Amino acid sequence: MYAIPNHARERSGLPGLAHTTLAGSEQGLSRLSVWRQSIAPGGATPPHRHDCEDVVLVHAGRGALHREGEVLSCEGDTTLVVPQNALHQIVNTGETPLETTGIFAMSPVEVYWPDGARIELPWKS
Amino acid sequence: MYAIPNHARERSGLPGLAHTTLAGSEQGLSRLSVWRQSIAPGGATPPHRHDCEDVVLVHAGRGALHREGEVLSCEGDTTLVVPQNALHQIVNTGETPLETTGIFAMSPVEVYWPDGARIELPWKS
Repeated sequence: MYAIPNHARERSGLPGLAHTTLAGSEQGLSRLSVWRQSIAPGGATPPHRHDCEDVVLVHAGRGALHREGEVLSCEGDTTLVVPQNALHQIVNTGETPLETTGIFAMSPVEVYWPDGARIELPWKS
Repeated sequence: MYAIPNHARERSGLPGLAHTTLAGSEQGLSRLSVWRQSIAPGGATPPHRHDCEDVVLVHAGRGALHREGEVLSCEGDTTLVVPQNALHQIVNTGETPLETTGIFAMSPVEVYWPDGARIELPWKS
């Protein structure tokens, strides 16, 4: 059992994407990972897929969820649901950071490029 | 794939506990449920357990996570991690609402009293 203040968590990221792992394998979890991310204006996640269900809570900002030609827009407090293995990308379409919490039904989370190669992430998940 | 504005979501609850299901079986998920809850001052969840891993993000307020004699306190932005099947209770120990997001590695979520009886929840999960 853990109660971890988030202000002290390790920070990481990719270009245009700030990342903090809130919960995952380091806390003994195997079926849940929780990530807090901030995507800068003009930024996006890579196009990618996971071999698990994925829920993204959008807290602030304006964004779009792309999946194989389908685009869903969101602004402010919104819940995104991505099926297992769906190829998708989250894009910041606004002028302020897109603040999200990413929730995954596995830990560590494995993330793949569209061609099936694994994306090496700079953070523990 | 879904993008659902949260302001329009169905609200439910228990005495002293306001509930909104953000994601779960109604969106086709079987391994993730996400709940937003607000526990009133003086309020608490029932003592309970789930047959799945559970992460609770505390966004605001002051609270305590109880588990079989162990008590972890939290204030403000904090991540709580509850192992699968651990008997636990979340208590609002402050004077303002305890705002949380509950994340579960199953959907629908089954919740049990300490004696093993199932808790019938008034919301879909």
